Parts: sequence; structure tokens; C-alpha cells
Amino acid sequence: MPEARPTLPPRLRQALVDVVGADAVLTDPDLVSGHEVDWTGRFRGRTPAVVRPADTAEVAAVLAICDESGVAVVPQGGNTGLVGGGVPTAGEVVLSLHRLDRLGPVDAVAGQVDAGAGATLEALQAHVAPHGLAYAVDLAARGTATVGGTIATNAGGVHVLRWGSTRRQVVGIEAVTADGRVLRHMGGLVKDNTGYDLAGLLCGSEGTLAVVTEARLSLVAQPAHQVVALCALGSVEAAVTATATVRRRVPQLDAAEMFLADGLALVREVTGRPDPFGSAHPVYVLFEASGPDDPTEALAAALAGAPEVHDVAVATAGSRRHDLWSYREEHTAAINTLGPPHKLDVSLPLARLAGFVAEVPEVVARVAPSARCWMFGHLGDGNVHVNVTGVRPDDDAVDDAVCSLVLEAGGSISAEHGIGTAKRRWLGRQRSAAELEVFRAIRGALDPRGTLNPHVLTTPALTPGATAPAPPARP
Amino acid sequence: MPEARPTLPPRLRQALVDVVGADAVLTDPDLVSGHEVDWTGRFRGRTPAVVRPADTAEVAAVLAICDESGVAVVPQGGNTGLVGGGVPTAGEVVLSLHRLDRLGPVDAVAGQVDAGAGATLEALQAHVAPHGLAYAVDLAARGTATVGGTIATNAGGVHVLRWGSTRRQVVGIEAVTADGRVLRHMGGLVKDNTGYDLAGLLCGSEGTLAVVTEARLSLVAQPAHQVVALCALGSVEAAVTATATVRRRVPQLDAAEMFLADGLALVREVTGRPDPFGSAHPVYVLFEASGPDDPTEALAAALAGAPEVHDVAVATAGSRRHDLWSYREEHTAAINTLGPPHKLDVSLPLARLAGFVAEVPEVVARVAPSARCWMFGHLGDGNVHVNVTGVRPDDDAVDDAVCSLVLEAGGSISAEHGIGTAKRRWLGRQRSAAELEVFRAIRGALDPRGTLNPHVLTTPALTPGATAPAPPARP
Repeated sequence: MPEARPTLPPRLRQALVDVVGADAVLTDPDLVSGHEVDWTGRFRGRTPAVVRPADTAEVAAVLAICDESGVAVVPQGGNTGLVGGGVPTAGEVVLSLHRLDRLGPVDAVAGQVDAGAGATLEALQAHVAPHGLAYAVDLAARGTATVGGTIATNAGGVHVLRWGSTRRQVVGIEAVTADGRVLRHMGGLVKDNTGYDLAGLLCGSEGTLAVVTEARLSLVAQPAHQVVALCALGSVEAAVTATATVRRRVPQLDAAEMFLADGLALVREVTGRPDPFGSAHPVYVLFEASGPDDPTEALAAALAGAPEVHDVAVATAGSRRHDLWSYREEHTAAINTLGPPHKLDVSLPLARLAGFVAEVPEVVARVAPSARCWMFGHLGDGNVHVNVTGVRPDDDAVDDAVCSLVLEAGGSISAEHGIGTAKRRWLGRQRSAAELEVFRAIRGALDPRGTLNPHVLTTPALTPGATAPAPPARP
Repeated sequence: MPEARPTLPPRLRQALVDVVGADAVLTDPDLVSGHEVDWTGRFRGRTPAVVRPADTAEVAAVLAICDESGVAVVPQGGNTGLVGGGVPTAGEVVLSLHRLDRLGPVDAVAGQVDAGAGATLEALQAHVAPHGLAYAVDLAARGTATVGGTIATNAGGVHVLRWGSTRRQVVGIEAVTADGRVLRHMGGLVKDNTGYDLAGLLCGSEGTLAVVTEARLSLVAQPAHQVVALCALGSVEAAVTATATVRRRVPQLDAAEMFLADGLALVREVTGRPDPFGSAHPVYVLFEASGPDDPTEALAAALAGAPEVHDVAVATAGSRRHDLWSYREEHTAAINTLGPPHKLDVSLPLARLAGFVAEVPEVVARVAPSARCWMFGHLGDGNVHVNVTGVRPDDDAVDDAVCSLVLEAGGSISAEHGIGTAKRRWLGRQRSAAELEVFRAIRGALDPRGTLNPHVLTTPALTPGATAPAPPARP
């Protein structure tokens, strides 16, 4: 059970009420508690208040008040992260961006739209779809994840292979610094070499440099044709080779998703789905391609030239495409039926990916003989979701073993979700001391009082003498 | 004539010689003078020495010595910029990166290569071509422009429409801070959310935050098929619409280059080339598409659906493609025959581009009645190269008029070349005071003594009390 909920000094509370109104400073436990825990339930804390500004000016005024008062702030979007970066783990005030959900008129000529930080990805997609456009970043949490949160974490999703992560979609940004200065550069120009790339820097900065309030986002055309090919392959090496071949031959490739024989068997066991090929194969890759012209022929030709492709199931009709996707998408739910897994979202250089997949079960078995490993992920990006079941939630040895393997292979301990509070202890093994010094210097330049998300990203050891509250206990 | 060449204190010179050797500290005027002027001849200064380190460790040692001694440094690559960002306009030491020209083995699986800052784009292309790969950033100065210089300026080129600017190609970076710390993160991972995007921040920072010494670059497949279509159109509006249509229908579109009737007439007059269509048209757009499959049919279909396309000349064979490109590429040389032009490299929102092209001659005529305007550029990126002939080189009224028009239309005063020393006076009209404060804070965090390129990017007014030498006189 977390500690008692902290309270705001009355003068500070009044100052906040004066800015946003009494209705927008939540302190009622019934209203506040949902903001104190992330959706996984793993990260939990207490906040003295949830402040819900209505616009950028109110965000600026709230931040200026908190910064002046030495009160730390956690900006919060949809709260769908996995690393504890958006919850008040150390008694911070929660700054909810939900009310900044305005969506501007679609600029069909430029293929761009202005979106408020609080708009969900689903609302954004619905807003641009009538114009034949789509936002390239799409992920399972689309109904809850917000524009601001996905920018702060540089979210990936299933189409990174083709369109890149969130950073590549952000062509203009508005953000507020800790002391309440508004940075706004929403031009949406493809070419604009007039100073540092603040938009790119804020993407993935996890709310530690400034609070994103609005962004101008690049959109892509909705495709006229779409095809999915589920391939059965002889090995992970063959899957990597096939993906490279398909990428080169099919520029319209959207996704290349891998899963393994044991994962498919588990999905079939849980869901009762038929085997897509009649018999099991070591590895499966789901390719999706789309475009103004039908990419089916090019995809088939590319697969015909790839080695160790044992079988292929192709679908162009919507429902059948969805069926093939289900084998991949149902992995998470199927694994969860075995108890809460350790989830490690990592990425590897493609040349090291097959070796990594082979070694994970070995290194895990050494520290947890009864554990089982389930791996799937975005093959085009080298992004493997390592799930380990059959170990206690607080048993760190498995995470240590997998992360060490990732680091030895030149991979990243955080492919998609950032560092948050959960992965701070690994950051020093991923990035050099010189890089961490520079991170801290940049952070200090934008937020000298350590007001914004003080326990996220950089480790406490990097901020000696900071006046922020002590870091939270490990979950 | 520039002032007398400054000299290094003997102790400092000896310290540099101890690091790089006597042969790599140039002070002989014959050897130094080529480093004191850019290739346009517009920006010129004096340097006490050109230091040519051989590797990253030497770069770090040289910078540490200069920083400790309070001596400002200008990093220099191929010296092909247009805004005076790489020449010692105020007596700085020149740090030449030419000897860091190592090219690593090509990683064909990832489609990446490690390249030293001093390698030219041409050498890089030749190095990766045998693997069926190419570097997506290509520009006319390819034989001289270097990897480091193009990163520092976030260079664009003719393929930005398809592949983006340099920032998007840089998947790993090594750079040295002013005080000699080496930042190295060369993983090349598509997904790596472990801290701030230093690589993206350094791209386009014009040598003001750190000196790039090496980069891991993403490569693209050499296309099997390539097609060029030169279109004659009725108006700039129609050209913008046609480009939007073609982009949506032809994902393999590489380039969309616009020029106007008077520009084509001048090119024909100077070169004696025939009219590509038999009669003149108001506007021309050259489309290039390429890919593993022949995009000719898709391109033709897209153009058939666009309004005001009066005529189209299509070429797939190499020499004929080159002929069509020549009409666009010979604009620069043809305009130069009329005397040195004012060159303004700007970008506009696509929705404002046609209006801008119509208004430029009007606003220029108001301040320079005898001037002539020539416009061409990268239509897909909204990037217009405004050339004005018939005005004195030091007549600022034309530049002021064009830049004011750009700013009113929500455009950028620097599409491709950065701010350098030439455009500092405009920066405050492009970016807000809050943004400039943040630029300065970030700069101060990485280079507190103002050692790196002190007169580039931010205006002198932003660094009150700086100990760096006074800014240079305007060219």
C-alpha cells in the first residue's frame, strides 16, 4: 500500500485554482487515484493534486507557479506507458494534458494537421480519415494514448519500418518550459534549417525538458491496396534474410512482424484458432504492404526469391488480413494467461538478432530454470519483445540476464518505451558517462530547478544535491 | 582586403604540435589561405592556424587545448556552404576534419556504414555502390562536401522529398565537445529510446554544440528502374497540385523540381539547347521516380489525372534522363552569366508557394526596379531558390524584401544552408525570443566558454559579455 497522500500548501492550491478554476484542481481521492497508477498497475504513487489546464496559457501559468514554489510536476497523457514515466511515484503534482485535445483543420495540400497534446491517436485518425489521410503512428493503445504522450516517448508502433517513429512525423511543436515559457514553432516546413531541432529533441525526452502542448503532424495517404503475407520459415536467420529481401524489392512494405513456433502453439491453444499452414514451422513472419497500386505481385516475387520460405498464406480482403494479423496480435493476451510476465522491450542490430533469439532461453535458464521465454516483435526494426513467464515479478535476475545479453550484442534496452523510472538503473550501461553528462547539462539548461519529471530518465546519481524528493522505492 | 593574419602564442602552437605533429599545424600563408575563404568567395577572414588532426583522439586533444586557452575554433569540412559558417571570419583557429576520412565496412544486412567526418559524399557513394546501395543525400558539391559538414548543416539535396534531409540518415554519431569529451553512440538501431536524440540535435547545429568526427549512416537500395518526366504546366498552382497528385499516386517519387518560362528561355539562350516541347509554357516540373519495379506507368497515370498539364516528355534511358535534368541543373550557371546574383534559399508552406512566386518580382521591383528575378527549386519540399540579378552585391534591400515576404507567408529564411554568419540578422524574425533563449541555453550547456563557432547561428546580441572576439564586419 502506498504512503499517505501528500497535500498542497493552501496558498499554492489557491494559486493553481486562480489559474485553472476550482474544478480543474482535483484533490478528491476518488478523482485523483486513477492518475496515481499506470495502466499495468506496476507503477503507483501518491499526488497532492491533479491539475487539468484547458489551454497552453494555463499550462504555462501552472508550470510557472510550481517551478517558483519548488514543486515537482509529472506531465501525464494517456498513461499507457510501460516504464513508470507518467505517474507521481514521488509525490509530484500531476499535470494532466487531457483537456488540450483540439484538432485543427486538415491541411490537405501539405498533408499535415495541428493536434493538441491531449487528443488520442484514435480521435486523430478519425479526424483525418475523411480526407483520405492517416497518421502513420498506430499502436494497440490508440484509444487512450495521446499525441503529447506519444511525442514525449517517441512512440513506435507497427509501421515504424515504413514511416519511422513519432519523431519523424512531428513537423512543428508547441511546448512549455518548466518556468512557463512557451516555445512555438509550428511551421510544418520540410526544410527549415534555422536553429536547433527542438521538436526532435523534445520527442523522446519523456517530459523532462518541456511539456508538449500541441504539435503539427505529418500525415500519410490511406492506401488503396493492402496485402498481408504470413510466411513460415526454417530459421530466424532466414526470417532476417527474407525481410531484407522483401524490403529491397517492395518499397511499400509497412510491417514485418515475427513470432516463433512455441508462441503460435500457445496462441492456438488459448484461442482455438486453426494452424495457418497445417503443420508447425520454426519461425513465422507476417509482411504487410500497401500503396496506391496492388503490391501483391511484388511481395510474392520477393518471397519466391528468399531462402527457407517453407510456405506462404496471402490475404488481401480485410477480414482475412485481420485473421492473419491475429496470430501475431494475440500473443500478448495468450502469454498473460500464464501469469504476469516480465516484459523486456529491446532492439538488436539485425545481424545479431538471430543469435540473440537463440541465446535468450539459455541465459534465462541459468538464472531461472523454471522460466519460459516467449519472443515476438517488429523484425524490420530489430525490435524483440521478450516475455518471460514462470518467475516472480520482483525477481530481477531475469531482467539482468536479458539486458546484459542485449548490451553485449550492441542492442538497446529500450526500443520503444523510454527509460522512465523503471530502466534508470540500466541507463549507465547503455550510454557513456560523457553522454549522461551532456543529457544532464541539456536538462539543466531547460529546467534548472528540476521541476519536470525529476525521477525520470537520468538516474538520481546524476543529480547530486538536487532538492527534488527522494526517488521512489522500486516497484 | 582582410586584416593582417593573427598569430598563435608560441606555447599554444607548441601544444597543438605536440598533439598532431608539426606538419598538421599549418601557418604558412600559402597553405592557410585556402581555408580562410569559402568557395563563393563571399566570406573571408584570417586564421592564425589550420589544425589537421588525424583521428578523434587528436580532435579531442586539440579542442581541449583551445578551450582551455580561450581560443575560438571554426570546424571546417568541404567549405561548400553558402552562409559563411565554416570560415574564420573573426580570427578563429580552423579545425580541418579532412583527415578523418575513414569509411568502414558496409553492413549490408542493416544497410548502414560508418563514415568519417572528412569523407566526401562522392567517396562515400563510391564506397557503398558495389553493394547495390547508395547514400540518399546527394548534391551538386558531392566531390567536395563532406560527411561532417553535411551533418553539421543538415544538408538537403535533390532527394529530400523521398528520403528526407541528412538528419534522417544519421543513425549513429561520434562527436567531440568543446572541452574535448568524446560522445559516441554509433549503434545504428532503428528503435533506441534511451535518452535525448543527440544525433538529431547535432544535425543542423552548424558546429556550435560539438564537432562531428564520425557517423553511422543509413543507406538506400540502388534502384533497378528510373524514370524522368518533364511536364509543361499552365501555372504554379497547377504545378503544386500536380506534385501533390503524383506524390500520392507514386510512392517511389524521388524528386519534383520546378522552373519557370523565363528561366528555361535563359538556359536555352546560354546553352543553345532546343525547347523540350516546341513552344513555351508558364511552368515546368521535372518528376523523377525510381524503384525495384518500373514506375513509368504509375507516373503517367498520375499525370493524366492532374489538371493543366499541357505536355509531358518522358525518359527512362540514362542519357535522355540526363538531358531532361539539364534544363533544371543549368539554371545556376545560366543565371551566373548575368553577373553575381543575390541567392536566397527559402522554403514556403505548399499552400503559399504559388502566391509567393507571383509576389517576389513585385516586391523586388519596388526596391530595385532594374532587378530581374529567377526562381527554381525543389517543389516537393516547398524549397524555392530565389536568384536576383541586376543589383549590387551589398544592396540589402532585395534580401530584406524577399525575406520579409517569406516570413509573412510562414516560410523559412533558410531551407537548406543554415544560418551561419550571413543570416544571423534574420534569425530573430524567424524564431521567437523564447526559442532563441533555449538555443543559447543549450549552447551554453555544451560549450560554456563559447569556443565553437562563436559567430555562427545565434546573433551576437544573444551572448552579452561573451569573451569571444568581436563579430566580423558584414561581407
